[in-house]
Amino acid sequence: MTPRTSPLGVVVVGYGYWGPNIVRNVMERPELELIALCERDPAQVRRFEARTPGVPSSDDFDALLADPRVDAVCIATPPRTHYALARKALEAGKHVLVEKPLATAVEDAEALVDLAERKELVLMPGHTFLYSPPVNKIHDLITSGELGEIYFVTSSRMNLGLYQADGVVCDLAPHDLSILLYWLDRRVASVSAAGCTVFDPDVAETAFLTLRFEDGPSANVQVSWLAPRKVRQMIIVGSRKMVQYDDTMPDGAVRIYDRGLDMEVVQEPANFGEHRLTYRSGDIVAPRIDAAEPLSLELADFANSILTGARPRSHSRLGLEIVRVLAAAEASLAGSGEPVVISREGTLVSKAAPLGPDTRAA
Amino acid sequence: MTPRTSPLGVVVVGYGYWGPNIVRNVMERPELELIALCERDPAQVRRFEARTPGVPSSDDFDALLADPRVDAVCIATPPRTHYALARKALEAGKHVLVEKPLATAVEDAEALVDLAERKELVLMPGHTFLYSPPVNKIHDLITSGELGEIYFVTSSRMNLGLYQADGVVCDLAPHDLSILLYWLDRRVASVSAAGCTVFDPDVAETAFLTLRFEDGPSANVQVSWLAPRKVRQMIIVGSRKMVQYDDTMPDGAVRIYDRGLDMEVVQEPANFGEHRLTYRSGDIVAPRIDAAEPLSLELADFANSILTGARPRSHSRLGLEIVRVLAAAEASLAGSGEPVVISREGTLVSKAAPLGPDTRAA
Amino acid sequence: MTPRTSPLGVVVVGYGYWGPNIVRNVMERPELELIALCERDPAQVRRFEARTPGVPSSDDFDALLADPRVDAVCIATPPRTHYALARKALEAGKHVLVEKPLATAVEDAEALVDLAERKELVLMPGHTFLYSPPVNKIHDLITSGELGEIYFVTSSRMNLGLYQADGVVCDLAPHDLSILLYWLDRRVASVSAAGCTVFDPDVAETAFLTLRFEDGPSANVQVSWLAPRKVRQMIIVGSRKMVQYDDTMPDGAVRIYDRGLDMEVVQEPANFGEHRLTYRSGDIVAPRIDAAEPLSLELADFANSILTGARPRSHSRLGLEIVRVLAAAEASLAGSGEPVVISREGTLVSKAAPLGPDTRAA
Amino acid sequence: MTPRTSPLGVVVVGYGYWGPNIVRNVMERPELELIALCERDPAQVRRFEARTPGVPSSDDFDALLADPRVDAVCIATPPRTHYALARKALEAGKHVLVEKPLATAVEDAEALVDLAERKELVLMPGHTFLYSPPVNKIHDLITSGELGEIYFVTSSRMNLGLYQADGVVCDLAPHDLSILLYWLDRRVASVSAAGCTVFDPDVAETAFLTLRFEDGPSANVQVSWLAPRKVRQMIIVGSRKMVQYDDTMPDGAVRIYDRGLDMEVVQEPANFGEHRLTYRSGDIVAPRIDAAEPLSLELADFANSILTGARPRSHSRLGLEIVRVLAAAEASLAGSGEPVVISREGTLVSKAAPLGPDTRAA
Repeated sequence: MTPRTSPLGVVVVGYGYWGPNIVRNVMERPELELIALCERDPAQVRRFEARTPGVPSSDDFDALLADPRVDAVCIATPPRTHYALARKALEAGKHVLVEKPLATAVEDAEALVDLAERKELVLMPGHTFLYSPPVNKIHDLITSGELGEIYFVTSSRMNLGLYQADGVVCDLAPHDLSILLYWLDRRVASVSAAGCTVFDPDVAETAFLTLRFEDGPSANVQVSWLAPRKVRQMIIVGSRKMVQYDDTMPDGAVRIYDRGLDMEVVQEPANFGEHRLTYRSGDIVAPRIDAAEPLSLELADFANSILTGARPRSHSRLGLEIVRVLAAAEASLAGSGEPVVISREGTLVSKAAPLGPDTRAA
Repeated sequence: MTPRTSPLGVVVVGYGYWGPNIVRNVMERPELELIALCERDPAQVRRFEARTPGVPSSDDFDALLADPRVDAVCIATPPRTHYALARKALEAGKHVLVEKPLATAVEDAEALVDLAERKELVLMPGHTFLYSPPVNKIHDLITSGELGEIYFVTSSRMNLGLYQADGVVCDLAPHDLSILLYWLDRRVASVSAAGCTVFDPDVAETAFLTLRFEDGPSANVQVSWLAPRKVRQMIIVGSRKMVQYDDTMPDGAVRIYDRGLDMEVVQEPANFGEHRLTYRSGDIVAPRIDAAEPLSLELADFANSILTGARPRSHSRLGLEIVRVLAAAEASLAGSGEPVVISREGTLVSKAAPLGPDTRAA
Repeated sequence: MTPRTSPLGVVVVGYGYWGPNIVRNVMERPELELIALCERDPAQVRRFEARTPGVPSSDDFDALLADPRVDAVCIATPPRTHYALARKALEAGKHVLVEKPLATAVEDAEALVDLAERKELVLMPGHTFLYSPPVNKIHDLITSGELGEIYFVTSSRMNLGLYQADGVVCDLAPHDLSILLYWLDRRVASVSAAGCTVFDPDVAETAFLTLRFEDGPSANVQVSWLAPRKVRQMIIVGSRKMVQYDDTMPDGAVRIYDRGLDMEVVQEPANFGEHRLTYRSGDIVAPRIDAAEPLSLELADFANSILTGARPRSHSRLGLEIVRVLAAAEASLAGSGEPVVISREGTLVSKAAPLGPDTRAA
Repeated sequence: MTPRTSPLGVVVVGYGYWGPNIVRNVMERPELELIALCERDPAQVRRFEARTPGVPSSDDFDALLADPRVDAVCIATPPRTHYALARKALEAGKHVLVEKPLATAVEDAEALVDLAERKELVLMPGHTFLYSPPVNKIHDLITSGELGEIYFVTSSRMNLGLYQADGVVCDLAPHDLSILLYWLDRRVASVSAAGCTVFDPDVAETAFLTLRFEDGPSANVQVSWLAPRKVRQMIIVGSRKMVQYDDTMPDGAVRIYDRGLDMEVVQEPANFGEHRLTYRSGDIVAPRIDAAEPLSLELADFANSILTGARPRSHSRLGLEIVRVLAAAEASLAGSGEPVVISREGTLVSKAAPLGPDTRAA
């Protein structure tokens, strides 16, 4: 591609919870120009107009796709609508940034990835946490070896949440999965999940996932819409250091514990011999992390990917893998919580029988 | 039994991590009199003598059991020794308080319970958390209905821990299980567990347990010896209120959130219909909780049980059920993490085959 | 005044730290319409234009004041410029909202108050904390008598701060003073102040103020630009309950402690008689506080005051009193820290000699 | 002095709040041997006997002083009794550890220091914080220059406190003063104080002290018995780094902020020129601090001082200076809060007139 001087024309689809943030950041990024908002709800349109006089809105997605000034589409609508909207945009030759998850069914996500690759268009799932400065600080600590071998990760992501028909796993777990896949840089080998349903027997509002990654590390993920207190905590335990990541901490989201255990054979009390771990005691450090708005960095990566052809950090195959893990988690949930294995080829297998894509609790 | 005026004579066995606390509390309780310490390790004996001049110690457990002044024995030794020591003491006609878990194998725990019942002696597992004022405050909130129906509980119990041959599940999970069984007052229907092993492939230092209780609630329990930060947090989510219990909070271990969700059908934006939960917003209360040392209350309950025949709060059948759940968790751990069902009769069944007591990862 | 249907025309002056927030809120409030921004700095003008296409900006304040569509002016420039800009606007017949403090010299503030009263225009100092929901919750607790008699208040307001030629007292203490005067609803009788100067001997970056209010309560206020950690904490101690207000707490800014002391004569150990206070122990409550943006509420009060003639909560005489207390504090700072008395008539008297307005460390 | 093999004989006087801790630590230190407790209150004596069978108690202080096995006396009685008890013990040729403050009047403290020096006996005030590992960690940071020049210190020490006839300044401020004098290692040049009295007009339960140290640094100290929440926080701001010390923090009492400000002349917006401080942003470190019981270290220093003649860290002239600063604070409190200057010779001078020792609010 050749360098271009004018900004990329962008349409934002949906002005609900997340859309206004995309609109604001598109307006502030010099590489992008907001051509229009696509939104059907008149109340949302009025909110948009009060804040952004002079930018048009429309409810006619097809007409906007036909506009040659539009280079790219940012989709911020509910998960179930992602596939249809993203396919239309790709078919119209537009680059696509679509909110997580990429799609709600594995075969839909696969179809989108294929379509984008065939048409040489950017298809980027909006895994915004991959652009969060604390997440990247921890990524650096892991890839530089400072934490040593990673043993396990726990994650709790809970709050009083907006009920969505796609369930809490589809709503919250993509955050944890994107972070875990980015940090650990290896595929998920199996997932087991147990959930609680209170309001609708088909839709879990709380779920506990246990993930096994290839070559070792495991993770326990708690997601819930029912918790009264906002919890955003991950603990990463490595052989050399350990890290706590908590976005709600007023005084630094990341804490590095230079503490740990070493195995030692100790001469124990005569009556009962025992091994013992010895403690390495050290400082706790809350590293300096430069403030930056992740969504602005994500949009910069999207623009860069369109302009240079580079793969964005939050790329379509990562988005597809997350959809597969979500499907495995929901298959385990729909069963009795047994582990569901994800093969290297991406097929799901439970203890009982191979799982086809149709086994997902839709 | 008839009222007695002289205090009950007690022998404490083991002066390692927990024994000194038992010794101190036995000395301060008027119903109890410390006859002697039983300890083989000379270093521990010297520590004991410096602090408690005038109380004898001995390494001859049999001789102490033969002493008619001894009414009861408090056993604070490693888990693997509990069964043999407790059996000897019961056979000698002594009441027994034994640290948790009651035993490391189900059949051993069953044998102890049978023996104590046959000999009409008190056999009390030391589930000290059942005497913790915050745990009892939450028990009151649950049994009074203030929290409503309990949906789920999460628990994290992590710190840099002393390695023990019996594994982290045996070491830490009894705390969570005793609290959960006490609060929820119903049996565990199934357990699945995944673990991480770092130092010894046969001994998990970290484990994630998912429990399903009869008639509904589920629980996710994270236990680890590898975490750099002490974590002691339980979240109890009910239909009316929710509670956070965190022993490390400087300003009150219990917080009651008068917040929650109600289901509502909301007329959503025209383009995609949706249900919605509405939030009930309310105060957060850290209730006044009177300070009291749980171990002192536990010893008072032990003495009362010996003197009056009343069942102690931490009773032998509770201790036995905890040993069964531990065995189920370790069976799941030793397998591939599939749920292990505990029948009403106490037998363990995995998806694959019934599990005998010999399947425990010893 | 008669009801009007069209929104009030507003000019915002200054687009530095606070101006963008005023611009955004003016645009979102239906009673107000942003006519233009007044700003000389081209970089700031560019920031404004990127965010708000379609609203003009100008560096000609006089021309904007001559525009008949302009009903009101919001001044968000450095403190030393407040007097001249506000006077011009009032003389042009415009209502004025001016950032705190109203002016940097007592006689300037007095002149502005006189001018606005003569011309029957609203002159409102921007003490935004008076519109903060937590501050109002505590105001309710005090005026309803729930806290009992107020004994004292401590306040710490510290962070790494932007150096300003007017000093930290002028920059940060107006927040504390506005809150204290609003809560305690009585005048400050005397002020003593001690400060630290590091970078410029004439400008304190840290100051400790001790205030005595009429009829009793006292307050200790710590303000600093040199503190590495953001501290925003006030403690209000009353005879019945006590309150902590901390804007940095993730889980509720206000905590009510239903705890306290009662005096009691206790029969003490024979060797030394003593009185004793007994503790009233009770719950800690973090009350539900509805979220609202204080600046939006402040602008609504400004609009309402213009339209109805009602006195705004943050009124000009409150702003004047704050300027007087600041002058007293700076007189004490410029001396040796002795208390400076503020008479009922508003004159300042130190131990040594009456202080004229010229004694202020300008 | 010659090395001795037998432990030093110790009498502890008073078994109220602090005495039991001294008794326990004397029993555990090998250099010391508890000869007896001196206590008149029968209830306290019974508590002592239950915990320490085999150690005698007595209410006859003179008889205990006559016992040649007694080398030293530890006095843990109310402040007003310190002078008479310590004088008796010194006159009997015993070394003395006396709880803070050394005495309640300057001339009494001077007399004790003189007497001990004349008789070549150790007189050690019990400023236990000087043996606290976090306090010593910060002392190291200051003396090594790591914090740079110290600008100021704030301290808040508040909780619901036991009322004492000597007032809150006498009860709590000695902690802050001992820490400040130890850290800053220079004398207090002046003190101003304002207080609140609620229950007894002659006894402040809350006080705000502002201290100026020689050559620069100042400190603001808030002490109160009326605060519902336990506050133990000191902030030390230096030119290079800043430290927060908070004993109630679960995750490390000391936090070092590698952040700060540098002065810079910045080309500001054309309309109003301004200087600006630039921020140095850096990590926050909670350094590893080895756990140790301060009182045990204090008793070791006392024993070492008796055996070797070395000056203890908490030495008598430090104790005397603290009594002088307390007297200055109370003189300011008894007046109208004006600064009271402490001369190099230790005399107190207010703005109005020199203060004799009789001006203390007794």
